Amino acid sequence: MKSNIKPAEGKLGILLPGLGAVATTLIAGVEAVKKGLAEPIGSLTQMGTIRLGKRTENRRPKVKDFVPLADLNDIVWGGWDVFEDNVYESAMNAKVLDAGLLNSVKDELQKIKPMKAAFDKNYAKNLTGTHVKTGTRYELAQQVIADIQNFKEANDLERVVLVWCGSTEIYYEASDVHTTLDKFEAGLKADDKLIAPSMIYAYAALKLGIPFANGAPNLTVDIPALIDLARETNTPIAGKDFKTGQTLMKTVLAPGLAARSLGVSGWFSTNILGNRDGLVLDDPDNFKTKEVSKLGVLEDIFKPEENPELYGDIYHKIRINYYPPHGDNKESWDNIDIFGWLGYKMQIKINFLCRDSILAAPIALDLALFSDFAKRAGMSGIQEWLSFYLKSPQTAPGLPAESDIFKQLIKLENTLRYLMGEDLITHLGLDYYEELVEAK
Amino acid sequence: MKSNIKPAEGKLGILLPGLGAVATTLIAGVEAVKKGLAEPIGSLTQMGTIRLGKRTENRRPKVKDFVPLADLNDIVWGGWDVFEDNVYESAMNAKVLDAGLLNSVKDELQKIKPMKAAFDKNYAKNLTGTHVKTGTRYELAQQVIADIQNFKEANDLERVVLVWCGSTEIYYEASDVHTTLDKFEAGLKADDKLIAPSMIYAYAALKLGIPFANGAPNLTVDIPALIDLARETNTPIAGKDFKTGQTLMKTVLAPGLAARSLGVSGWFSTNILGNRDGLVLDDPDNFKTKEVSKLGVLEDIFKPEENPELYGDIYHKIRINYYPPHGDNKESWDNIDIFGWLGYKMQIKINFLCRDSILAAPIALDLALFSDFAKRAGMSGIQEWLSFYLKSPQTAPGLPAESDIFKQLIKLENTLRYLMGEDLITHLGLDYYEELVEAK
Amino acid sequence: MKSNIKPAEGKLGILLPGLGAVATTLIAGVEAVKKGLAEPIGSLTQMGTIRLGKRTENRRPKVKDFVPLADLNDIVWGGWDVFEDNVYESAMNAKVLDAGLLNSVKDELQKIKPMKAAFDKNYAKNLTGTHVKTGTRYELAQQVIADIQNFKEANDLERVVLVWCGSTEIYYEASDVHTTLDKFEAGLKADDKLIAPSMIYAYAALKLGIPFANGAPNLTVDIPALIDLARETNTPIAGKDFKTGQTLMKTVLAPGLAARSLGVSGWFSTNILGNRDGLVLDDPDNFKTKEVSKLGVLEDIFKPEENPELYGDIYHKIRINYYPPHGDNKESWDNIDIFGWLGYKMQIKINFLCRDSILAAPIALDLALFSDFAKRAGMSGIQEWLSFYLKSPQTAPGLPAESDIFKQLIKLENTLRYLMGEDLITHLGLDYYEELVEAK
Amino acid sequence: MKSNIKPAEGKLGILLPGLGAVATTLIAGVEAVKKGLAEPIGSLTQMGTIRLGKRTENRRPKVKDFVPLADLNDIVWGGWDVFEDNVYESAMNAKVLDAGLLNSVKDELQKIKPMKAAFDKNYAKNLTGTHVKTGTRYELAQQVIADIQNFKEANDLERVVLVWCGSTEIYYEASDVHTTLDKFEAGLKADDKLIAPSMIYAYAALKLGIPFANGAPNLTVDIPALIDLARETNTPIAGKDFKTGQTLMKTVLAPGLAARSLGVSGWFSTNILGNRDGLVLDDPDNFKTKEVSKLGVLEDIFKPEENPELYGDIYHKIRINYYPPHGDNKESWDNIDIFGWLGYKMQIKINFLCRDSILAAPIALDLALFSDFAKRAGMSGIQEWLSFYLKSPQTAPGLPAESDIFKQLIKLENTLRYLMGEDLITHLGLDYYEELVEAK
Ligand SMILES: NC(=O)c1ccc[n+]([C@@H]2O[C@H](COP(=O)([O-])OP(=O)(O)OC[C@H]3O[C@@H](n4cnc5c(N)ncnc54)[C@H](O)[C@@H]3O)[C@@H](O)[C@H]2O)c1
Ligand SMILES: NC(=O)c1ccc[n+]([C@@H]2O[C@H](COP(=O)([O-])OP(=O)(O)OC[C@H]3O[C@@H](n4cnc5c(N)ncnc54)[C@H](O)[C@@H]3O)[C@@H](O)[C@H]2O)c1
Ligand SMILES: NC(=O)c1ccc[n+]([C@@H]2O[C@H](COP(=O)([O-])OP(=O)(O)OC[C@H]3O[C@@H](n4cnc5c(N)ncnc54)[C@H](O)[C@@H]3O)[C@@H](O)[C@H]2O)c1
Ligand SMILES: NC(=O)c1ccc[n+]([C@@H]2O[C@H](COP(=O)([O-])OP(=O)(O)OC[C@H]3O[C@@H](n4cnc5c(N)ncnc54)[C@H](O)[C@@H]3O)[C@@H](O)[C@H]2O)c1
Ligand code: NA
Ligand code: NA
Repeated sequence: MKSNIKPAEGKLGILLPGLGAVATTLIAGVEAVKKGLAEPIGSLTQMGTIRLGKRTENRRPKVKDFVPLADLNDIVWGGWDVFEDNVYESAMNAKVLDAGLLNSVKDELQKIKPMKAAFDKNYAKNLTGTHVKTGTRYELAQQVIADIQNFKEANDLERVVLVWCGSTEIYYEASDVHTTLDKFEAGLKADDKLIAPSMIYAYAALKLGIPFANGAPNLTVDIPALIDLARETNTPIAGKDFKTGQTLMKTVLAPGLAARSLGVSGWFSTNILGNRDGLVLDDPDNFKTKEVSKLGVLEDIFKPEENPELYGDIYHKIRINYYPPHGDNKESWDNIDIFGWLGYKMQIKINFLCRDSILAAPIALDLALFSDFAKRAGMSGIQEWLSFYLKSPQTAPGLPAESDIFKQLIKLENTLRYLMGEDLITHLGLDYYEELVEAK
Repeated sequence: MKSNIKPAEGKLGILLPGLGAVATTLIAGVEAVKKGLAEPIGSLTQMGTIRLGKRTENRRPKVKDFVPLADLNDIVWGGWDVFEDNVYESAMNAKVLDAGLLNSVKDELQKIKPMKAAFDKNYAKNLTGTHVKTGTRYELAQQVIADIQNFKEANDLERVVLVWCGSTEIYYEASDVHTTLDKFEAGLKADDKLIAPSMIYAYAALKLGIPFANGAPNLTVDIPALIDLARETNTPIAGKDFKTGQTLMKTVLAPGLAARSLGVSGWFSTNILGNRDGLVLDDPDNFKTKEVSKLGVLEDIFKPEENPELYGDIYHKIRINYYPPHGDNKESWDNIDIFGWLGYKMQIKINFLCRDSILAAPIALDLALFSDFAKRAGMSGIQEWLSFYLKSPQTAPGLPAESDIFKQLIKLENTLRYLMGEDLITHLGLDYYEELVEAK
Repeated sequence: MKSNIKPAEGKLGILLPGLGAVATTLIAGVEAVKKGLAEPIGSLTQMGTIRLGKRTENRRPKVKDFVPLADLNDIVWGGWDVFEDNVYESAMNAKVLDAGLLNSVKDELQKIKPMKAAFDKNYAKNLTGTHVKTGTRYELAQQVIADIQNFKEANDLERVVLVWCGSTEIYYEASDVHTTLDKFEAGLKADDKLIAPSMIYAYAALKLGIPFANGAPNLTVDIPALIDLARETNTPIAGKDFKTGQTLMKTVLAPGLAARSLGVSGWFSTNILGNRDGLVLDDPDNFKTKEVSKLGVLEDIFKPEENPELYGDIYHKIRINYYPPHGDNKESWDNIDIFGWLGYKMQIKINFLCRDSILAAPIALDLALFSDFAKRAGMSGIQEWLSFYLKSPQTAPGLPAESDIFKQLIKLENTLRYLMGEDLITHLGLDYYEELVEAK
Repeated sequence: MKSNIKPAEGKLGILLPGLGAVATTLIAGVEAVKKGLAEPIGSLTQMGTIRLGKRTENRRPKVKDFVPLADLNDIVWGGWDVFEDNVYESAMNAKVLDAGLLNSVKDELQKIKPMKAAFDKNYAKNLTGTHVKTGTRYELAQQVIADIQNFKEANDLERVVLVWCGSTEIYYEASDVHTTLDKFEAGLKADDKLIAPSMIYAYAALKLGIPFANGAPNLTVDIPALIDLARETNTPIAGKDFKTGQTLMKTVLAPGLAARSLGVSGWFSTNILGNRDGLVLDDPDNFKTKEVSKLGVLEDIFKPEENPELYGDIYHKIRINYYPPHGDNKESWDNIDIFGWLGYKMQIKINFLCRDSILAAPIALDLALFSDFAKRAGMSGIQEWLSFYLKSPQTAPGLPAESDIFKQLIKLENTLRYLMGEDLITHLGLDYYEELVEAK
């Protein structure tokens, strides 16, 4: 297997539609890491280790030492935005990172200027950017394709990946124009308003065989037309919605309750956030996109239809509140009403003083690096093993999404082990005790 | 494999040293369940399901329908205590379950009267029970053996298991008398004070080939002498300390942080509880036993020596507070200081309004049923696959304990699959996408 | 002064428009107290003490022993509702009190059957009651007057008071028809839709010289027309909105911050509740009434225009969430962003697991008893000294409302002292040290 | 009255025994305020306003514009410590204020060097300072007197005050040597170990007629010998223990519960702190001093003997935990078990992310300024009106301490009004409604 994976030689371009809080935190962070000023905490590819073989072998290399990933020093950044601010200015506005840190990589950040965005204000009413391309959707797609090609040539890149870090678009569902590639391309030409701006970037990338990952909850690449295109051009895709904060906690905690067969009657989740993302989500249409993405995870994990006595009657409510005093320091509260032995009630309350973009940036990095790796490993289409990073993961048609973060992790790790020719881990481990079996 | 497992025919005796809050909640609960008055929530064996085969097969039977476990209707209860109260009286004192519920099973509970305890007040200074056996430790052991045999005959039982539900004993470490069976038996005869009362029950059970599980944090069966005896008499053992409440949460949450390579600088855990268990733990010597049991889990999970940048400098503090107003409604607070991308700090605060014995009772039940099953499946010695239920699990010498509840769960499930002749689950699942592999 | 207060002789009728959770908790509770089954905790009139004279005098009688209030044994209950359920049935539905307790006063409660309501569904869209009067608003008022008179005669009552415990009405402001008594009475005859149902009860009571207190946030008696009528008929009025739960906490905590000149930049309040009140408030129009009532208190207390550096820029947000799993057990979270010395930031987080009607019932009782007392003491119109009990207290025109619960308490206590001929308390107390002054 | 108060002319020396976190935060802060870099938030003297006259007069000046206090620009700083660090170094160690802010007043801070301390290691075992005076207690007292006189002359000061900001001393109670001035002075000469170091400073100050306030929970000036000396030399004294953080909240919240006659069955308070103060308090003997100071407030406020049904059975527990990860960012949790109407239970949980020294510094400032004011106003001995600032306030013998912060505030405000010849406020306010009375 290992022999089939192309090495990570040459430079990798990471192009980000949307150079806001997450994107600039990512870029500034990697530049700081490259200078030895900070550590890429929260990134499994950079900090994580993976167990190989039996426990007694004590093999536990870093992921990046086990799998051939692009080196941080080989990354070149670019992106699009509806505002003209360069990455330094945008990072200062976002107020996620300290001015001191940003100034230490000011030169690198100032150089990165957004290309004009493919945008449609109907998809984000609270945004009034002016740095936008003009033309029909088809023309916009051609311009994005040209942007990518120019960027690749200008920077002498070996490979490119795209990660959508743009604002959450308003809620929409897949409609006829999204069902086949033919209809989609016809829709582009007809400037069909049902094609969202984010889809234009995705289409452009996939046409060029460039991996595309989607950090927002909008469908984007999660439509048959683009899934087909991905398979056609042998390109990995991954979506949707970076799994951070409250949902991250939920997909950690819910599996714990399910593991123990503890019942759940209610789950109330509320949070406050005061950044630009919060402002966009203050519009009910955009909030709905986020809400749908967040609501699904409990059903995935609890499977109420199979466990009706425990999870058949959960009242799950999510409220997001725009609250400027906290800026990017999103804070969440969960109240979980559970019941145990004989139906006796208990409550779990979680208060997470988190930092939104601090949690999202390393995810965007890992998605970029793993997407590039997947491409080199000959994988294409939906990368279910990356659902570890996503609130609302794409799966093969007919297959329920798996939101349990621990199953997602095993899937990710066993995928890496499999691709690298290592034994899969089953945690059986009877051999340590019984000398009965070969399994690990 | 399946063919080798003896069926669960006839009656199963469950004997509990310590008929306090946990034990009476267990007994009253099972009796209520048998009458259709309540559900055994929180018990994996009774309520849990297990996935078999590929996801698309949709095979997800209840555990009890998959594995041949003793039926609840075949259970006969017994136990020992230093107080004379019958199970109804003791349950009323414990104030865990409503009087209404207890009265509905009053007849069944009143019949269960404790046998005299093998006790030594030095091991629990805050207890002043009088319902105790007399004699040297060796004589006590012989009396317990006789108790078990009489109980078995009197009730016409096919099989028996013991689960220690007695108070936490004061802190002690393994010493010379615990190292070999010979020394241990000599110690019994010499009435060596270093042999704890709980060990007397364990010795008696193992001598008879009867499985023994330990719900308290004291060593008990976790000493070479008794591990050897277990192997000799082909008897499964499991210990130690029911994993409930705050530690349960910890072993759910910590793996989630580790999965995402998020750093941890401090973890402060405090709780308040007002039951008899709390009173015993108010003595510093007994508290130490609990503390040691609770402290270990973070190291098991975070492996600081392998991940020094993330977990090399955790300040972990645990405080238990006796607080009568809450009775058995233990309540815990955790403050977790974490850091992410570039070292930026965040905090997670968890407040768990739990009910101690409500969480512990189904664990005691599962340990009893699975221990009995293990015996019938020909397994003996340490049952690492039961560490799912334990705060401080026993492992083979030299093998680090695994406290990550999700790895424990996979281990448990894959053990059941293995014993029942089903494929192990690896969560690889590439076959749904690539038709490349056979693995699931 | 004392000599002018009429004694509390004979029976007092307490009539409650709205026999829902609060009203039935009040009635059942008083009946249980009368039987010696429980204590009227939370009621200042019944449980509270009041200091008289100098500290060294050690005079601290119960309020009810100091002020001539009606005795609980002299109360006769009645009310109106849009549902036909008697008080026992309604209390069972409300699920505030245990069935056991309710059954112990079942006879008393079953006897109390609601009179038909003066109702207009436009004022509470989520309610579909059928037990309603018909006719123009003027005719409804005449029917309510007759109801009151019949009730008084039938029960041989000396005095009557009304306390509105009906659902929160949709948001409305005072309009022309509310400005004078003449216009109001013309409006009644013209069946003017701008006259809310609650106003019909208030008008009927005041016409008869019967005190009226308003436990809901709707204006009701807080309009010039009815304030004038109250002065005309020498009748005390008090409103509006029982001060319980989160707002109670707010008016306790905010004065503490203001006392210490600590700045506040944000205050986020959210709560979950699952009772019928919550269902009504789930309608945005009704929620608005509640929100307006709750929002004002911070301004009253912090006076941002006078303390702009500390309170000029508070972001205050209130969210109420209907969450059925908790029933009447309303639960609230407050996050308060404060700043201290040199602007350094701190946070206070409050989680209140409260019981809505348990907090409201004793307030309704005190308002009834004190309103009756005020009438006997010859006081009329707005009773500012009762603002202690109210979220959004009425004041004399041009006078800012005082929401600081401690100033409200001193006002209440000094009013009682004044009326009973005792010295006012100033807490000066220099005399203990300096022998300089007479003040206390 | 006003005419008797001496004006605040000339320079005021503030001398602080203990130049640690609180003291340096105070000094650095005032210097920053003087430069216009920050605001003295949290200081009632600097930021607070006071209502004068009737509400309709709208007179609400700043306290410092109403009362003749020393101007911040007239303050000269000095102090003693067992470590040699100057105030800049000590502030950097304390890590309370940002390095940026400290650097902007570096010159001012570096100049302030501690004088050698009067110290006895038995009173703070976790401290190993070397910058200490030698001699008997009497000699130490003479040296401190000389220090003060030299400081006054060298800086051309008009007046001086002392505020103890030293570490908490181990627990001790008043003994024979503390009962009279004669015995005390004999004890100094005999170098009696029962005389604590803090008493030496207090004695020196009072001998010179210099006000002394005590920010720590040790007795210090709260002994008959020094109270007598204060009266003799016409000197104000105030103590003890700055009221910040958790206790501040407690004396805000408890009066709110008492106001409403809500019962309390338990109050559990725990906190974590990681500064030097926390290290000293990690010693059980020093912790006891703090605990005693903190425990009293609930009794003061709830008066259980007078309200046995509500407060007769409170279980009050306080735990302080040294937790280095949080540094000076003390964080506290309170769980309050309350009961209302008919005994139904509710819970209040408070989580305060506070900053210890940020809360304490403005209190130290106010105590200094008000003590100086009191001296000029001819007041002497215990200043009960300053108990607003203190956890464990001194009172006249036989008078119970008043810990309700709102009563303390009225006392403080009415004292200022009284001294300045303004009407006392009673909040009666009937005049707005009834034209009946003159009271306000
Ligand atoms: N931060 C998190 O924790 C987190 C978690 C999950 C998902 N997300 C998602 O990630 C995305 C980015 O979040 P953020 O906090 O950086 O938001 P942000 O508002 O700071 O940045 C988004 C940027 O996208 C730009 N943009 C919008 N539409 C565009 C278009 N069509 N083309 C190019 N640029 C466009 C905006 O101008 C803005 O600068 C959002 O969709 C958010 O919901 C974030
Ligand atoms: N409840 C939980 O969540 C939980 C979790 C983990 C572990 N545990 C452990 O389970 C055990 C039982 O907990 P509990 O809440 O039921 O405590 P409990 O105090 O209510 O009951 C313990 C009983 O054991 C009896 N006992 C003590 N020594 C004995 C002896 N030598 N022989 C026979 N009886 C003896 C006591 O008299 C008492 O009745 C404790 O060790 C506790 O630490 C409980
Ligand atoms: N419980 C609290 O803590 C609290 C606090 C402040 C204010 N309040 C207010 O008190 C009121 C009562 O609260 P609740 O919890 O008892 O609500 P509830 O819904 O249980 O009871 C209200 C009752 O009023 C009846 N009603 C509505 N309109 C009526 C009309 N025109 N005439 C007669 N009956 C009418 C309804 O049918 C219902 O039975 C609400 O307005 C609520 O907002 C309650
Ligand atoms: N920060 C708060 O919120 C707060 C609240 C209430 C009370 N207090 C009390 O205020 C005091 C100061 O607190 P801190 O946080 O600044 O502590 P800190 O430990 O930072 O400073 C105390 C300083 O006093 C010095 N010291 C000890 N004994 C001395 C002596 N005999 N003479 C001269 N110096 C001496 C120590 O060397 C140290 O530098 C403590 O007693 C604390 O308990 C603080
Ligand atoms: Na293994
Ligand atoms: Na007034």
